[in-house]
Amino acid sequence: MEKAFKNLIKSEFPDLGNARLLLAVSGGVDSVVLAHLCKKAKLDFSIAHCNFNLREDESEADEEFVMELGDALEVEVFSESFDTVKYAEEAGISIQMAARDLRYDWFEELRSTLKYDIILTAHHANDDLETFVINLVRGSGLEGFTGIKAQKNKIIRPFLKFSRREIESYARENHISWREDSSNASSKYMRNRIRHQVIPVLEELNPQLLQSFTLTQEHLQESFDLLEDYVGLLYSEIVSKTEYGYSLDIGILKKVPNTKAVLYHLLKTFGFSEWNDVHDLLIAQPGKMVFSPTHRLIRDREYLLLTEKPSETDDRIYEISEGEEIIMLPPGTFSIEEVKEIGETGPNLLYVEKQKLEYPLVLRKWQEGDHFYPFGMKGKKKISDFFKDKKLSLPEKENTWLLCSADRIVWVVNHRADGRFAVDDPSKEILKITYSL
Amino acid sequence: MEKAFKNLIKSEFPDLGNARLLLAVSGGVDSVVLAHLCKKAKLDFSIAHCNFNLREDESEADEEFVMELGDALEVEVFSESFDTVKYAEEAGISIQMAARDLRYDWFEELRSTLKYDIILTAHHANDDLETFVINLVRGSGLEGFTGIKAQKNKIIRPFLKFSRREIESYARENHISWREDSSNASSKYMRNRIRHQVIPVLEELNPQLLQSFTLTQEHLQESFDLLEDYVGLLYSEIVSKTEYGYSLDIGILKKVPNTKAVLYHLLKTFGFSEWNDVHDLLIAQPGKMVFSPTHRLIRDREYLLLTEKPSETDDRIYEISEGEEIIMLPPGTFSIEEVKEIGETGPNLLYVEKQKLEYPLVLRKWQEGDHFYPFGMKGKKKISDFFKDKKLSLPEKENTWLLCSADRIVWVVNHRADGRFAVDDPSKEILKITYSL
Repeated sequence: MEKAFKNLIKSEFPDLGNARLLLAVSGGVDSVVLAHLCKKAKLDFSIAHCNFNLREDESEADEEFVMELGDALEVEVFSESFDTVKYAEEAGISIQMAARDLRYDWFEELRSTLKYDIILTAHHANDDLETFVINLVRGSGLEGFTGIKAQKNKIIRPFLKFSRREIESYARENHISWREDSSNASSKYMRNRIRHQVIPVLEELNPQLLQSFTLTQEHLQESFDLLEDYVGLLYSEIVSKTEYGYSLDIGILKKVPNTKAVLYHLLKTFGFSEWNDVHDLLIAQPGKMVFSPTHRLIRDREYLLLTEKPSETDDRIYEISEGEEIIMLPPGTFSIEEVKEIGETGPNLLYVEKQKLEYPLVLRKWQEGDHFYPFGMKGKKKISDFFKDKKLSLPEKENTWLLCSADRIVWVVNHRADGRFAVDDPSKEILKITYSL
Repeated sequence: MEKAFKNLIKSEFPDLGNARLLLAVSGGVDSVVLAHLCKKAKLDFSIAHCNFNLREDESEADEEFVMELGDALEVEVFSESFDTVKYAEEAGISIQMAARDLRYDWFEELRSTLKYDIILTAHHANDDLETFVINLVRGSGLEGFTGIKAQKNKIIRPFLKFSRREIESYARENHISWREDSSNASSKYMRNRIRHQVIPVLEELNPQLLQSFTLTQEHLQESFDLLEDYVGLLYSEIVSKTEYGYSLDIGILKKVPNTKAVLYHLLKTFGFSEWNDVHDLLIAQPGKMVFSPTHRLIRDREYLLLTEKPSETDDRIYEISEGEEIIMLPPGTFSIEEVKEIGETGPNLLYVEKQKLEYPLVLRKWQEGDHFYPFGMKGKKKISDFFKDKKLSLPEKENTWLLCSADRIVWVVNHRADGRFAVDDPSKEILKITYSL
């Protein structure tokens, strides 16, 4: 195995020879053998050990063992103690997940602080095979069957093509001692039952199981990569960034094959679960919505609009007092200035006769029943009809502010002025109001 | 289960109610229960039973049992006997594969001959799960993990969401008898060992295993469908049909991500196995080739050219005697006619002075050292240089015929005439020769 390891380093990870490496060492046979082999390959490395405090005295003894290993190999050892149980409880995750998060976060912190180039872990082919079967038991999509990557970000896993058996044989032949994790021996955990009761049967059925499994993983990884490429291509054709989130082109969605699966892959990170309802939006009336815990998908005319879930109805109200010139509010910034005459015009600025206003001005969102007297039009108009005529989408309506004088609307901000406050007499005080996000 | 089955038919396979069905019934619990449930659901069906003659007396007893089942349910039974062992030996395939081929071929023959609409089989969720694990053991790509389809061509598998346990419970509760396959009880076959030694452990780890597995299969099937869509899209952009096979656009291949995986998916049906070599063709010199047992991939200038593997060197020779007017040969058809004068011209026709020819004319392929005197040019030219100047691809060179008079080339067919045979004296006998595929 020593020769195979050295060849592997040479052929697949040639950069390791000139890098400063940080080795994740638990004290188990895999990581201890990795440390020995890195020493034999004359790599430049230090050891990082996590004490998760999950097995009391044993955890202490593991730490002690790794310290001694560092002495024997003449390399530096970093060790950190974690209150894994507390972290898991606070984050609401499993102990295993907590340990994983803590471990990788700390490794990366060490690496970047102390200028190591690469983190090495001792994951091997059996780990991958066990994970495959665990994901089969729990249910999974393709990603769960593609296995851990040999190289990702700053982490390299050089043992991924070696089996547990090879690693243990090497340790025995070279009289290398290691710490046996007492939880390994029991069938308490799913991984252990699969390791001891399932994999041995599969290996009897195919003595070359691990080799063929390595190829299987490569195939599935390739398929997954291609799938990601395709989704990326579809994303660029279908999805656009909008002011309030994202829009998905309904016309293209209807044309691509397997639309429901495409929707799943485009939207899977947003927490939706009712994929039939999501799919049905394509043939629903405009205005129809589907919610995830965090997001909302709205059927608009030609697009599905994805926004964050709004926090109930928006009843925020802001007041603007007389004399204020720059008003910075969460939605945007108003500037109000006195001007001598009316200059440039446009929907995003407003001229009013100051005397017609009642202070404080009020800035609020649209409510059912609101109406105004659009400048240049005779009579009044419901805000809802005005929105409809302008073909505003729901997020656009929700994000439109109304500038009011008492209960009268002065300006549908950035859309239309109200005629009642218009400048009739140029000799009166004129205010120019602009709004920008 | 009766209710669940009827609901499933109503919601997922509504057409079955008005169809003539052919039920594949082995005599095992799955297919016997399917027959009973189809009867309860008042479907219009007949039974088809295969006797594979693999278990002597037992096979006979199975057949007898299915006949009696037909009587009891008052439906017609078709039964056919196969020499499965002989078929497998002759086809060089396993007994299991032989049985599967024989079964589906015969079902389809029965169906189309006797005007049945649909074939029903009793595959259930456990079959799928076992197949998944078998493919894990043997090694597989994504397709091997997507499971059997509930509906494909004229076959429907309405039990695919039911478990073996549900089916057996229904049989027991309803006092339905069935034939136990004696090979099922032993752990002789891989499927049986997985059924009896692996799946039970997985079910202990997740009592909802089959439900989550059904979802897993749907996810993987969706991923596979999307992958096929993507490969179809890439195919239409990269692959073109040519006269001698297919061409793949190297420029686009170099631009798409994961080129090696793309090449695999575009070419996997042609038997290649050295995918690194295939990939390396993209950066190889023109002329470099990779072979599969049946095909050949050639690096040309801007394309990879896929052709069938040529049968050694092509040393076919055809002779054309004096006076023959229409000569139909495997490569194409020559027509030779006497004309009064030279008319239209072009590379695909030739005028020669008949007297200059020595009969029989000979039609053969290019050989190293061949040369000719191109019409309109001074001096002689090697055929290999002529091909190079015309930028012919290897398949084009291989498929170019030379029309010869004794050892002199008269015509590089459909490319260029030799000046030595040109019509110098219009009063002499003129032959017009054309060639078409």
